[in-house]
Amino acid sequence: MKNLPAVEAASLVEGVRQGEARAIARAISAIENREPGADRLVQELFPHTGRALLVGITGAPGTGKSSLVNRLALRYRAEGKRVGIIAVDPTSPFTGGALLGDRIRMQQHATDDGIYIRSMATRGFLGGLARATADAALVLDAAGKELVLIETVGVGQDEVDIVRLADVTVLLLVAGMGDDVQSFKAGVMEIADVFVINKADRGGTERLESELKVVLGLGSRGDGWRPPIVKTVATEGTGVAELAAALDEYMQHLEKAGLREQKRLERWQQRLLDLIRQQALERVMKAGVGLEELARYARQIARRERDPYSVVAELLRTAGLAE
Amino acid sequence: MKNLPAVEAASLVEGVRQGEARAIARAISAIENREPGADRLVQELFPHTGRALLVGITGAPGTGKSSLVNRLALRYRAEGKRVGIIAVDPTSPFTGGALLGDRIRMQQHATDDGIYIRSMATRGFLGGLARATADAALVLDAAGKELVLIETVGVGQDEVDIVRLADVTVLLLVAGMGDDVQSFKAGVMEIADVFVINKADRGGTERLESELKVVLGLGSRGDGWRPPIVKTVATEGTGVAELAAALDEYMQHLEKAGLREQKRLERWQQRLLDLIRQQALERVMKAGVGLEELARYARQIARRERDPYSVVAELLRTAGLAE
Repeated sequence: MKNLPAVEAASLVEGVRQGEARAIARAISAIENREPGADRLVQELFPHTGRALLVGITGAPGTGKSSLVNRLALRYRAEGKRVGIIAVDPTSPFTGGALLGDRIRMQQHATDDGIYIRSMATRGFLGGLARATADAALVLDAAGKELVLIETVGVGQDEVDIVRLADVTVLLLVAGMGDDVQSFKAGVMEIADVFVINKADRGGTERLESELKVVLGLGSRGDGWRPPIVKTVATEGTGVAELAAALDEYMQHLEKAGLREQKRLERWQQRLLDLIRQQALERVMKAGVGLEELARYARQIARRERDPYSVVAELLRTAGLAE
Repeated sequence: MKNLPAVEAASLVEGVRQGEARAIARAISAIENREPGADRLVQELFPHTGRALLVGITGAPGTGKSSLVNRLALRYRAEGKRVGIIAVDPTSPFTGGALLGDRIRMQQHATDDGIYIRSMATRGFLGGLARATADAALVLDAAGKELVLIETVGVGQDEVDIVRLADVTVLLLVAGMGDDVQSFKAGVMEIADVFVINKADRGGTERLESELKVVLGLGSRGDGWRPPIVKTVATEGTGVAELAAALDEYMQHLEKAGLREQKRLERWQQRLLDLIRQQALERVMKAGVGLEELARYARQIARRERDPYSVVAELLRTAGLAE
């Protein structure tokens, strides 16, 4: 872990605010690698954030998220908006850093400095992918990106944590990918503000749409929003304008209903909980145990000489965290 | 939150060890709801655990996990083995407690007290699904279940944490569900010890199998195991015997290579980290902030009057957790 000198931190803050790609990259890396000084960096950037619209785009592998994000970014760019893209891949906790094929294609934008693209796949031993993503979004926000598109696979907990960062969440579906209605039941509905049926030139799209309509008709959201269904063929750009319009409409709805503020508050509460969890772990480790001690405890537990709860209680006590 | 009286705790421990369904249900609920006394309950059960084989079964929605778990459980049961099933559904963080259709069908086993089935979907405000699942597995282990099948959707972080609990992990795939090879690249390979291509009577199965073989042929695992591919039609029971044999073979491989112990140690290390994170959060909340204060901090942050890091640093200091 490298150190981030105060001088560099100050010039980084300046560079990020100017929207310089190199400064943005360096700042995100410093944060992702948890370099000393990274917290201060985020603190200094923080007052300059809060203007970007964070759009979460999620869906199973193969639904075409990258293509859609690609097209959406181009569209916003054509309107003169600055766009940041964060592609999160939490399915790579072990390999760390898979750069998917689609990502490479997206690098065509890299020459356009209105678009900044970042892949995040690594997850340190101590976790914290959701936090790293949130901080990367803050950096892009401070860098003046008006839109930050956060693309993420699947439906697990870390995913939900990441989606919670977004102002608006898009769920991609594709006809013929397993028992879709069952996955709707499983609570995905509450996460998505806008549904996209991508690869809409495929057979089964109409059926999926009517099933989805039935499911959406059953529930009602506390915020009075009825999530629309947009059909796209992302590889050809079809439906992307409609998607952008749907996102716009949702934000206007929130504004009118006076809910945008409330949603942001809820998000910050969740983020505070995540941060407490993560930072508390880091401090307990620093105070009580290195990885070697951890291994020793694990051995005692595996042999049933001790139980995990009494070990954890002891570690927390040592770190000063009384019951 | 109800309290768990000492008398009840003692009789629960006894009941669980006798394998009584009601005691098992009560113990898991006490743990899941974080009732006071639940930690002690786990502590007392802990010395009686460590004998069950934990089998993780994961795959996207619609791959047929429940049917396969169903068949596998019946098979082990026919061999006279006691089986516990934990069906985890982390995609329901908001609704809390979705009991899917497949689960209902599985309740046909409920009359057989050699099989115990538990759904876990709720996730409290403070998180901890992986922990609750781990504890439920401990209860079933203490109850004398020789096999505990843990079924879980998808590929997010909480999923990975849950899969880490298992001695052996099965990944279900189905032909024609999107860009499969891309999802292999994304690090799933390292998680799975055995691959299952379910619904193997579908078109595309052969192609998926050969693609998968190519991908599996590329990497090599540190433990010298080459994950086999088993083809099943779970709804008809086809291939279930082969799957059971593959699981057996993997465990024998670990035993011979002297790796079973090492894998268990690594798992306990991860669980310790999870526990520290979770319990530290609970203590910080108890010491410093209730949910109201949390809301107040969130408001200050949303207004950019304060930054999240300094708030968290303050909360940790208040709880006694010095930097």
